[in-house]
Amino acid sequence: MNLYHQYESLLSAEELGYVAKAREFCTGSFSESLLAAHMAGKAFPERWIADWAAIGMLGLQAKRAHGGLGASYLCKIRVAQEMAHHGFAAAFCLNHHQGGATRLSQAGTPVQIEHLLAPALRGELLLTTAMTEPAGGSDVSALTTTATPVNGGWTLSGTKAWMTNGLLVGGLIVLARVGDAAGAENIASFYVPFGASESVKRTEVLVPGGRSFRLAEVAFDRHFVPDWCLIAPPGAALKASMTAVNGARVHVAAMSVATLYAALCEAVDYCENRQAFGKPLTGHQGLRWELAEVSIRLEAANALVFRAAEQIQIGENPVGLAAQAKKFAVDTAIWGIDQCVRIVGATGASAAHRLNMHLAEVRMAAYADGTNEMLLDRVGRGLSSTYPKSIS
Amino acid sequence: MNLYHQYESLLSAEELGYVAKAREFCTGSFSESLLAAHMAGKAFPERWIADWAAIGMLGLQAKRAHGGLGASYLCKIRVAQEMAHHGFAAAFCLNHHQGGATRLSQAGTPVQIEHLLAPALRGELLLTTAMTEPAGGSDVSALTTTATPVNGGWTLSGTKAWMTNGLLVGGLIVLARVGDAAGAENIASFYVPFGASESVKRTEVLVPGGRSFRLAEVAFDRHFVPDWCLIAPPGAALKASMTAVNGARVHVAAMSVATLYAALCEAVDYCENRQAFGKPLTGHQGLRWELAEVSIRLEAANALVFRAAEQIQIGENPVGLAAQAKKFAVDTAIWGIDQCVRIVGATGASAAHRLNMHLAEVRMAAYADGTNEMLLDRVGRGLSSTYPKSIS
Amino acid sequence: MNLYHQYESLLSAEELGYVAKAREFCTGSFSESLLAAHMAGKAFPERWIADWAAIGMLGLQAKRAHGGLGASYLCKIRVAQEMAHHGFAAAFCLNHHQGGATRLSQAGTPVQIEHLLAPALRGELLLTTAMTEPAGGSDVSALTTTATPVNGGWTLSGTKAWMTNGLLVGGLIVLARVGDAAGAENIASFYVPFGASESVKRTEVLVPGGRSFRLAEVAFDRHFVPDWCLIAPPGAALKASMTAVNGARVHVAAMSVATLYAALCEAVDYCENRQAFGKPLTGHQGLRWELAEVSIRLEAANALVFRAAEQIQIGENPVGLAAQAKKFAVDTAIWGIDQCVRIVGATGASAAHRLNMHLAEVRMAAYADGTNEMLLDRVGRGLSSTYPKSIS
Amino acid sequence: MNLYHQYESLLSAEELGYVAKAREFCTGSFSESLLAAHMAGKAFPERWIADWAAIGMLGLQAKRAHGGLGASYLCKIRVAQEMAHHGFAAAFCLNHHQGGATRLSQAGTPVQIEHLLAPALRGELLLTTAMTEPAGGSDVSALTTTATPVNGGWTLSGTKAWMTNGLLVGGLIVLARVGDAAGAENIASFYVPFGASESVKRTEVLVPGGRSFRLAEVAFDRHFVPDWCLIAPPGAALKASMTAVNGARVHVAAMSVATLYAALCEAVDYCENRQAFGKPLTGHQGLRWELAEVSIRLEAANALVFRAAEQIQIGENPVGLAAQAKKFAVDTAIWGIDQCVRIVGATGASAAHRLNMHLAEVRMAAYADGTNEMLLDRVGRGLSSTYPKSIS
Repeated sequence: MNLYHQYESLLSAEELGYVAKAREFCTGSFSESLLAAHMAGKAFPERWIADWAAIGMLGLQAKRAHGGLGASYLCKIRVAQEMAHHGFAAAFCLNHHQGGATRLSQAGTPVQIEHLLAPALRGELLLTTAMTEPAGGSDVSALTTTATPVNGGWTLSGTKAWMTNGLLVGGLIVLARVGDAAGAENIASFYVPFGASESVKRTEVLVPGGRSFRLAEVAFDRHFVPDWCLIAPPGAALKASMTAVNGARVHVAAMSVATLYAALCEAVDYCENRQAFGKPLTGHQGLRWELAEVSIRLEAANALVFRAAEQIQIGENPVGLAAQAKKFAVDTAIWGIDQCVRIVGATGASAAHRLNMHLAEVRMAAYADGTNEMLLDRVGRGLSSTYPKSIS
Repeated sequence: MNLYHQYESLLSAEELGYVAKAREFCTGSFSESLLAAHMAGKAFPERWIADWAAIGMLGLQAKRAHGGLGASYLCKIRVAQEMAHHGFAAAFCLNHHQGGATRLSQAGTPVQIEHLLAPALRGELLLTTAMTEPAGGSDVSALTTTATPVNGGWTLSGTKAWMTNGLLVGGLIVLARVGDAAGAENIASFYVPFGASESVKRTEVLVPGGRSFRLAEVAFDRHFVPDWCLIAPPGAALKASMTAVNGARVHVAAMSVATLYAALCEAVDYCENRQAFGKPLTGHQGLRWELAEVSIRLEAANALVFRAAEQIQIGENPVGLAAQAKKFAVDTAIWGIDQCVRIVGATGASAAHRLNMHLAEVRMAAYADGTNEMLLDRVGRGLSSTYPKSIS
Repeated sequence: MNLYHQYESLLSAEELGYVAKAREFCTGSFSESLLAAHMAGKAFPERWIADWAAIGMLGLQAKRAHGGLGASYLCKIRVAQEMAHHGFAAAFCLNHHQGGATRLSQAGTPVQIEHLLAPALRGELLLTTAMTEPAGGSDVSALTTTATPVNGGWTLSGTKAWMTNGLLVGGLIVLARVGDAAGAENIASFYVPFGASESVKRTEVLVPGGRSFRLAEVAFDRHFVPDWCLIAPPGAALKASMTAVNGARVHVAAMSVATLYAALCEAVDYCENRQAFGKPLTGHQGLRWELAEVSIRLEAANALVFRAAEQIQIGENPVGLAAQAKKFAVDTAIWGIDQCVRIVGATGASAAHRLNMHLAEVRMAAYADGTNEMLLDRVGRGLSSTYPKSIS
Repeated sequence: MNLYHQYESLLSAEELGYVAKAREFCTGSFSESLLAAHMAGKAFPERWIADWAAIGMLGLQAKRAHGGLGASYLCKIRVAQEMAHHGFAAAFCLNHHQGGATRLSQAGTPVQIEHLLAPALRGELLLTTAMTEPAGGSDVSALTTTATPVNGGWTLSGTKAWMTNGLLVGGLIVLARVGDAAGAENIASFYVPFGASESVKRTEVLVPGGRSFRLAEVAFDRHFVPDWCLIAPPGAALKASMTAVNGARVHVAAMSVATLYAALCEAVDYCENRQAFGKPLTGHQGLRWELAEVSIRLEAANALVFRAAEQIQIGENPVGLAAQAKKFAVDTAIWGIDQCVRIVGATGASAAHRLNMHLAEVRMAAYADGTNEMLLDRVGRGLSSTYPKSIS
């Protein structure tokens, strides 16, 4: 039984076809291209985005009427996992904006569907949501970006940090405060096209081994946003984000598991073929146990992520479970890939080794969609209702 | 979504009824009786066996034609988990011999079905399998008990250690060597009635906090075993054990998870109601995070055990997955209950507290059906086939 | 170089003699007696207290003028460690009240020296300090026991929990509030003789495997305490306790390390002599690595405890370091002994095995003189002064 | 009491002066230069080597008669730690070759002292020892480089991997086999000047975030080595390496501890000054406990490393203790710095942050002078003599 057996028993034949197509796409030159870019200290080539779009992968959950594939959440996860075997950053970045596409397909205005969704599905426009600010960290209540109503739209001021694909995008979905009051009820979201405006400044955020995320900080200074770009009105934006975050957490968790899976397979293969003291490395019990322990926790993470994903698939909003799955899967993936790097020895630490790329990239999963501290607080809040005295 | 949602979606209405019946049985005076026995340093009262048998629970998987309930493996697990909420040792001991009953129902001779299975389903005869020997530990290949053919049967000599329910049983299923050759091909199994014979000596093995396991060492000295008692002929016994052990491992793992679940619920309840420094213990972030982390690993263990159990349910024999699930679940349960004991403070260390009983009892799960060392070796052997380079 | 080399280079020849005498005392029948009591579920025989007193060990730090040995703190630790090799509970209980003896020798009134210190040094009177209350846990500010001034003394009301040696003592050193105000400034301490009074009620607190601590809860109901029994006046008692606690924490830590050391030696010896799969257990790399890892953390704990003890020896009051050493040493000892028990296999779980006794007893160290939660808070408060930006 | 109190109580006033001088050197522009190089993905500027030499730091343990400072091992460690606060790689590389200098000063021929030691003390020649080979990993017995005697010297063939400073050096100290027999008795060591020869090929080994190590692989193809370059004759070379490795292990361990110390100070400072949810990060208990736990293990690592270093200082050769200290200190440093990075949040993951540099560089400590696997095996071999049954 392969690792993804539980998922695949719930996919349609058509969806299984998408997964197979994704696997085919990722193997070979795509995979080699990711590693070559990593070794050169560069981001992976931009052209892969159009190629990925060309086989329909950017609109997996968008409606068929809008040019999407109408696939399910579990299918989207499996597709992303196939890419995460080869590189976590690529999988994260190429699948990241599907959340935006899905939402537009479900709730966008006709103008937004034409001007945003259509080019998004072709890979010409990427939909990154900008919540985090430099001073705010994980404290969304401290959000200080403002949108001031003006004729024909708003002017936006404030700075957003840690934007995935931030060096590529021509615009961002921005959460901003309309009016002065603190609290969630006056936070709205907008698609903010950059244009050629001088009121937008973009700076690269350099993360060693993580250039494929193309992270940027973007500062707006009284930047104009036209009327039609309002995505969620004041009061609805934060709520929508809070709901979407569960799906995003499980998605990140699932990709982390996939990258760990690939890392373990690579480490096992290496240890089967490398000799020390007259036998293969896997012939040494201590090292074999270390690999076995990695496999045990990988299986646990995979099973937990599936359970959370299955809940999302059937329309539940499993706040606690999504947080639990994300914390466990990401912790496990970082620990496990680090073990693989160590087990493979100095070779694994070399930039020329994919394990090294996997480790650098998966580490970033710890910051996306909730740090451990936020996740523990989230789980902590639900303890007494999820684990009541009355079970027995 | 409760912890057992995945299981319960696969049970029939009838099976869900058995689970409910088990839950009802275990709540109240049964539960109190377990804790009272623990506090007094005694085993739980023997009479519960007959009561448990009376509602049909000793033959869950035995055929209806033989007086069993014909239920599935997943149903058996859920029933055992309901009891494990209240006490791991009781759940382990009362459900332990079902493996023997199921096998007799499937493959026993008519005489065995009449003389062994029928009283077993009534709780009058317990079916404990004796593999471990004092000097052999986990090394089954070193098994030294011998069965010498004589007129009308065999005479048995050797010592078996760590027998669950060993102080109660009137006989044991014994693995023994027929003939001199080493190796598996001459190992057979027998039901060995003790009778009033002086050729059987039984000694209690005292495990602090674990008297409810009623552990014993049993020594046979040229003890007669009649013909009809042969269960598996030479060559078949070890193989049958090796197959059955996967189901047994997942069963132990599932009960460990259930006991951890009950422990976490108890600890959360305690911390919600106990004050320190002017607020409930759960109002202190550090402690709340500790409880959250326990919940995260509980969920991971539960999801992994389900995945392994589901494989057994559909007739697979998931050797690696069963070993992975057992190691992870038992490690997690011991660690997690220990955390709960610590979090509750000195109170949790008192014999009067059920958390204390849970910890003492679950610790024994580490020795049943494979120590960590054996499980790591088992997982290690399958690494290169389970995690092949070719996944990506 | 043995584990205690750093200590021993700082002891005088006379002090080394005390350590040797302690070692001799503890070996042989004393050691066997501890294990036998544990196996029988009883406390160790009371008579050892007088024997230990007879060789001067109850007044190690008391002044020679008062009948003590005038030894140093490091000497006291080494003596206690020799006993902790054989049993943690005995070492804890027999050396516990030396804190009280030392303080009386330094600051007691002549009457107190005659009526309390002298019999204490003979082992006829044990000096246990009662701070913890059932509802208060680690929150000393919530202390509710009151001492109301009356003619010739005070009347005391309130309940004290978790008293070490509580089943043996004829009196307690009690912290109580004089007057109504909250806060530390009206907390005083008294030696409270029980007499035959009905105003004192004592109940055993049963801790599985921990009967040698002889834990009791003691309730006072308007119990009379004569004038001469005042130890520290209001305002001074809590401060004295806060200073003494650092020495006590390092003392507990040092005994925990010693018990882990003995456990590791016992496990190594067992694994050298037990065969599996045709070679000694230590011939299996995986298991050998597990033992090696225990030894590594033992050495780290030992070195850290020495560093803290050395500070106390020279008259420093290393609040942060004592808390760090206690948390690390006790965590390590519990984890390490647990590893030894597991490594030794089911045999180690049997009540007949000293490893089992060690584990049950060392677990109680987590509750004495500050739980992990209290220690982390204590260390947390000092972080910015101990780890300033300016080091580099 | 600062972290290095135990060391400093054993240094002479002169040696304390060297430490102070090192601290002064490292603060300010040197420190900024390291971080700037890291951010630019480059090695730190080469010129610092001459500056460091100019204040005498490259011959700390060399004899005064040879131009060294005649300082002790503990002094050398403290000096290296001062630099390790600012950058582990710089400290490792600038202090790495002192082992070679010390050995030449003690046992070099007059020619070697003139042609090797003198320029080494001026920083003009770096002394890197080449043991590891690409195929051999940690298995020294598999060493395949050969030195064939010829007129006036030897010709050397073979490849050495993972050479620290390998991109800078003009020669290497090489271990090679003289003659055909396997085993240690025909392994000799040579200083091998590269000259302008085509028989030497050097390739950079790229380690992400680790360019300051200037790692290279060097291949020799019948490369001539003159007579005077023999350092240790056949049979003596491996033994000398085995003795020297203990000092090297503790040295690496001590630098790792120092880098962790600096990382913790930096993280504490950050968390004191960064606000979230209306208070400093250190005002949140969960995060404060995480920092406290890092401090606890830092203190344990530091104390253990000191204990091992003290043994080396007095002329012991603590094989087991050095291995224990290295494993614990490096594991703790990698874990602890990783915690600091995580605690600081996404900011800590940015290349612009020194914590990020610390993590990337300290990770390499796991490969220098023995991997965890080798260290566990080393400790495992000494278990029964270091932890004998007879302690109690």
